[in-house]
Amino acid sequence: MTTQTIVTAAMLAIGDELLSGRTKDKNIGHLADILTLSGIDLKEVRIVADEEGAIVEALNALRSRYTYIFTSGGIGPTHDDITADAVSAAFGVPCLHDPAAMTLLGDMYAKRGMEFTEARKRMARMPQGAGHIANPVSTAPGFTIGNVFVMAGVPQVFQAMLDAVIPTLDTGTRMLSRAIPCPFGEGDIGTPLSEIQKAHPETSIGSYPKYDGKAFSTEIVVRARSEAVLEPAAEAVFAMVETIKAAKIAQNTSAEA
Amino acid sequence: MTTQTIVTAAMLAIGDELLSGRTKDKNIGHLADILTLSGIDLKEVRIVADEEGAIVEALNALRSRYTYIFTSGGIGPTHDDITADAVSAAFGVPCLHDPAAMTLLGDMYAKRGMEFTEARKRMARMPQGAGHIANPVSTAPGFTIGNVFVMAGVPQVFQAMLDAVIPTLDTGTRMLSRAIPCPFGEGDIGTPLSEIQKAHPETSIGSYPKYDGKAFSTEIVVRARSEAVLEPAAEAVFAMVETIKAAKIAQNTSAEA
Repeated sequence: MTTQTIVTAAMLAIGDELLSGRTKDKNIGHLADILTLSGIDLKEVRIVADEEGAIVEALNALRSRYTYIFTSGGIGPTHDDITADAVSAAFGVPCLHDPAAMTLLGDMYAKRGMEFTEARKRMARMPQGAGHIANPVSTAPGFTIGNVFVMAGVPQVFQAMLDAVIPTLDTGTRMLSRAIPCPFGEGDIGTPLSEIQKAHPETSIGSYPKYDGKAFSTEIVVRARSEAVLEPAAEAVFAMVETIKAAKIAQNTSAEA
Repeated sequence: MTTQTIVTAAMLAIGDELLSGRTKDKNIGHLADILTLSGIDLKEVRIVADEEGAIVEALNALRSRYTYIFTSGGIGPTHDDITADAVSAAFGVPCLHDPAAMTLLGDMYAKRGMEFTEARKRMARMPQGAGHIANPVSTAPGFTIGNVFVMAGVPQVFQAMLDAVIPTLDTGTRMLSRAIPCPFGEGDIGTPLSEIQKAHPETSIGSYPKYDGKAFSTEIVVRARSEAVLEPAAEAVFAMVETIKAAKIAQNTSAEA
């Protein structure tokens, strides 16, 4: 029996455009992939509009419950970018122009011969006491306060910021998984799969139906935090699929005879 | 001044596979598109795991707050399909094999010469008193109870069920939108765009940055529930973009001179 460490996370995706359908989110799936690889369990995702009350309420609900919270969106220079104000309100601290961020952005615009406008200065605003998240794509930093990591909504910038954050996090025992393709629908496997789940209670066995326009097939996924637990359950699922295949062949042969 | 009706909605996407990254959700964006076209405002989305407590809590929070709630996932025949139980628990009613659904599924399997197994009978389970949502793809119905619509996670089935549900819903005054492409980053437009938003308080103006690997551009979207409100604001945004273009050309010309 080895000790297992569980580290949890939630995501809060912020933006009217995600709820109107105008933008199809790409950050949730990316975060899910990276966290799973890192040994952090993504437990919940919420998408809310660019409304301070909605952001504050969701953030406070999530940050008290999970180890880490990742947000996307609303940290640009326009009037609808209100994430810095909302996060400050959630933590009960002032939202200020961060001096280091002002220097970083001021220098960048000076080098490019561009004016450091009031709008651009908005990108230096963050909750008092927040740390920076580096932005190698377009300089304007994300920020972190408490257990919350506030990142951009543009996928290339979100991904770059996440790359900067991940090495700084505590991680848990990785959830291992084995996927077993199954050419049959869930109705064929439901009963025996349930028996396998009962016999291997330390694993989590999921079955994910796919429809190709004509028929259903299934991907069966066995998950556990150690190979010793995972392997016997995956073997049992594999054997179950082979048994159903053999039974179907026998059935067809006898029907043809 | 015309009367405006606001109808709101939330989505609850259910499934471990969405949180592990194994499946990239396609239903949220589809629902968002269809609701926007129908005059229903999608206000919040949550994604939770296949855990009864998490589903019950999220569903009860959402159903008391919005006109309609749409769920995806967890209504198949395998042991990890627990949505019917969780929705029943949220409403405090028993989860039973629905007689009409049993007949529907029993007839379908009889016609195909397939056994109506215990696993397949799970697909007839729903909260006592629930109505059916027709499933033209694979027969097993979704269900509706109170203001909640429980649909499949497989996108083709989710979409077919949503097509059946939409004509039965109350709809509000449609949110109209006009998108104005802008070749400049948000830093260039932040200050004048904020002025336009202030001058047109009945509109909601959003700006959505895009990054092509080299530079940022922006899509500016003006939203309102009537053309009379929308048009002047959209015209002002269009004029702003033209003004910035002219200023950039003048700047480059003078720099070259």
